Amino acid sequence: MKKDKPTILVVNDDGITAPGIKALIYAMNDIGRVVVVAPDSPQSGMGHAITIGKPLRFDKEDLYEGIEMYKCSGTPVDCVKLAVNLVFKGKKPDLCVSGINHGLNNSINVLYSGTMSAAVEGAIESIPSIGFSLDNYTQQANFEPCVKYVKEIALQVLEHGLPTATLLNVNFPATPLKGIKICRQANAKWAEEFDERMDPHNRPYYWLTGVFQLNDQGEDTDVWALENGYVSVVPVQFDMTAHHAIPVLNSWKFND
Amino acid sequence: MKKDKPTILVVNDDGITAPGIKALIYAMNDIGRVVVVAPDSPQSGMGHAITIGKPLRFDKEDLYEGIEMYKCSGTPVDCVKLAVNLVFKGKKPDLCVSGINHGLNNSINVLYSGTMSAAVEGAIESIPSIGFSLDNYTQQANFEPCVKYVKEIALQVLEHGLPTATLLNVNFPATPLKGIKICRQANAKWAEEFDERMDPHNRPYYWLTGVFQLNDQGEDTDVWALENGYVSVVPVQFDMTAHHAIPVLNSWKFND
Repeated sequence: MKKDKPTILVVNDDGITAPGIKALIYAMNDIGRVVVVAPDSPQSGMGHAITIGKPLRFDKEDLYEGIEMYKCSGTPVDCVKLAVNLVFKGKKPDLCVSGINHGLNNSINVLYSGTMSAAVEGAIESIPSIGFSLDNYTQQANFEPCVKYVKEIALQVLEHGLPTATLLNVNFPATPLKGIKICRQANAKWAEEFDERMDPHNRPYYWLTGVFQLNDQGEDTDVWALENGYVSVVPVQFDMTAHHAIPVLNSWKFND
Repeated sequence: MKKDKPTILVVNDDGITAPGIKALIYAMNDIGRVVVVAPDSPQSGMGHAITIGKPLRFDKEDLYEGIEMYKCSGTPVDCVKLAVNLVFKGKKPDLCVSGINHGLNNSINVLYSGTMSAAVEGAIESIPSIGFSLDNYTQQANFEPCVKYVKEIALQVLEHGLPTATLLNVNFPATPLKGIKICRQANAKWAEEFDERMDPHNRPYYWLTGVFQLNDQGEDTDVWALENGYVSVVPVQFDMTAHHAIPVLNSWKFND
């Protein structure tokens, strides 16, 4: 680990006032110099969205004493880009942590999650990055049991670094925590249903709802770990290439 | 290939009126029954965002004669979810094609791209899926040279299917097309800069801009193929697990 106090960028997708980021800020404040850049409004489900069709607001915030904080009008990924460019000005932080999200980001949710996409963006910027999420969607979620694991995992990443072009997706069950399991992303999807309603002008509108559908009985997955009381840690990569499919496609005959 | 005319879902991120989706609609209309579900406004850079904090509008559209079309107020991924749930009602289409995007979605852009995220969502739904993009951001882009390749690749996917849990990311250079190369995603990132301006009330705002930074000299990448006049085809997966990093993390000593 570096001898100097590490600099730690804290981001999230639930917005700068969320209890989850407050827990993360204070956990990180015990081990380094914290800089917060977070959305000024909830940005759940924003995935890897960036703001290109309109400009962004970016302002100092002063919520917690002694903590350097900024809020922005954009997405979680925008927050990381703004932090790197306007706050750190090219001198990268030692760690980027995102969360603690109100709600799980295990399995396929890694794709939809603003929390995880912010961590992915940190990793693209070559910053060791971790996303944290708790299985409790409410504002009353108790993040206290997560804190010792959050610190432990952050310290390990600061000590060892992470394999090139990877980051960590850490999820906590809402049950008593039995320890840490290194996992793979479970094969699952959302079976969507749209809830149709009528507006006062008798025009229909639709709310996205869905049921999580697990298609994986493996005991090495994040879903299994969480169901069995463990903190799941999945190493994530942003090379989306399906390398194993390249020889298959090369066997096709194209009429060029 | 199936004996019946295949059903083909066409989506995009530039919006239902974009010239790129028009080119794709007519190309697909030559080989199957087309159903279009596209955003009612431009949704570039939306990544894998979904709309969960507000409801969606979803309406019939009637732009091109004889083509079944719907527009929605959400993201490209929302379009696929709406199509599966409200249009196909569980009876999946034979193919999902997204684009043709005005602008490249090669390399790391696969993460930011609404076009590609719509195709990823199709693949999550177990629909053989392809995203198409052309290296021309303008409304005047000429999609004509792409059409024969778009049809050829779509027909090959209908004939062979795709390896489980994969999809295709197809990009076209704006130069004369020399043929198809199967590639991997090049290692690259955007070096962002924020363009600071003052509003009429003297408060700053920021436009996201950036320079594409290639960190990969491989001749097996999509960037290389496009620079050398080839149509790049990258097989993409949505399992984000960095499987090679699991043993590394298992060697760490956690104080559980």
